[in-house]
Amino acid sequence: MDGAAIPPLAPELRAEIADLYAEYGDVLDAGEYERWTALFTQHCLYLVIPRENHERGLPLATVRAESRGMLEDRVHAIRQTQMFVPRWIRHLIGAPRILRHEDGVVAARASYAVFETQPDQLTRVLNVGRYEDEIVRDDGRLRFRRKLCVFDSILIPTSLVLPI
Amino acid sequence: MDGAAIPPLAPELRAEIADLYAEYGDVLDAGEYERWTALFTQHCLYLVIPRENHERGLPLATVRAESRGMLEDRVHAIRQTQMFVPRWIRHLIGAPRILRHEDGVVAARASYAVFETQPDQLTRVLNVGRYEDEIVRDDGRLRFRRKLCVFDSILIPTSLVLPI
Amino acid sequence: MDGAAIPPLAPELRAEIADLYAEYGDVLDAGEYERWTALFTQHCLYLVIPRENHERGLPLATVRAESRGMLEDRVHAIRQTQMFVPRWIRHLIGAPRILRHEDGVVAARASYAVFETQPDQLTRVLNVGRYEDEIVRDDGRLRFRRKLCVFDSILIPTSLVLPI
Repeated sequence: MDGAAIPPLAPELRAEIADLYAEYGDVLDAGEYERWTALFTQHCLYLVIPRENHERGLPLATVRAESRGMLEDRVHAIRQTQMFVPRWIRHLIGAPRILRHEDGVVAARASYAVFETQPDQLTRVLNVGRYEDEIVRDDGRLRFRRKLCVFDSILIPTSLVLPI
Repeated sequence: MDGAAIPPLAPELRAEIADLYAEYGDVLDAGEYERWTALFTQHCLYLVIPRENHERGLPLATVRAESRGMLEDRVHAIRQTQMFVPRWIRHLIGAPRILRHEDGVVAARASYAVFETQPDQLTRVLNVGRYEDEIVRDDGRLRFRRKLCVFDSILIPTSLVLPI
Repeated sequence: MDGAAIPPLAPELRAEIADLYAEYGDVLDAGEYERWTALFTQHCLYLVIPRENHERGLPLATVRAESRGMLEDRVHAIRQTQMFVPRWIRHLIGAPRILRHEDGVVAARASYAVFETQPDQLTRVLNVGRYEDEIVRDDGRLRFRRKLCVFDSILIPTSLVLPI
């Protein structure tokens, strides 16, 4: 985990990684969920998991998807429930910290904050935490083959219907 | 809107764009409003607009300025009202997502969160949303020729006196 | 303070500075405080100071450390008090704005927001403000020789036990 020990990434790769995170937050906030699923490899792991469980090694996650197909199922469910509870979501994602770059896999972490706005309400903090990611080149572009959304609060103001 | 299809920007231009956003937030939070207006071209469009209006194509904006001169007028008004309602503003701006780069114009989007602190109060979320920007080189440096601040909440805790 | 007047940094140095900030937030949020102290030079200045005091030139700071040893003492104190008030901390740090690069010293500023989560509570904004930093190369890597955490709110929801 010592950042100083990692050989520097090529500038083009750094730029692509930054762009991947910017795109990730942007498509989610725009509700472009089909574009969101396209940011994952076909075989992938997507977990939304409380920090406490994650640090204790407990596998119990709030959301678990083990393929892009499962993410697409999730999007289908969102499309059906969204009309009942309208809300806007806003991601702020910190600059990723590169932990490893081996065998074509970049391991990175990034802090995130998600804000939620419901109609006629003030914006509030919905969820903050850390992405723990593995990124690979797949079919011409970078994608997540593993994304853990490790969130700090067990208590959340509304159910986590929308992706983090 | 597919990030993968855009030819990569030159590293120097990427750096300049990142610096423009960093400077934008920094001068606003420092109350250096004259420096803020200098980040726009003489002919420009600056809108602060609720997301709902923007997505429905309604032109009704909370703030509208169509030139740097109008932004300067706004700064003049701020200087006169500020003494009555002291507060600190703090911008967090996500990494910009580049959408297009054509004919000398960079189209970019970035999430932002603005926090507000009034004397003897806790800091709170004032406004979150997305910048939708067009950036050009003008008189030796990058400037915004168009900046839309599309904000998520119709309800805001205080009047939007200060620029977003 | 005019960003346009600064000669562009070498891309490698820009990348290293970005990585320093990413590492700074990440080690704090992970509670890796020994790694945090290693991000400072032996002789350093670390201040957590209200914006109002800082702008008036008042030296009164909430936290003051004048060497890495004093930071290590602080970590020791945190280790002893942490068990009584468990909480998670989450940093979001904006892209740094480079102000100067002279004689091997980079002066930079960055906005930050720190969120706090206590057990069985919603996440809330703990502290927002601006880092005012001086960065040098020291023993093979970049470190802070000066870091001011200038925060916007005098009122904070809990005591600032953990580093900002």
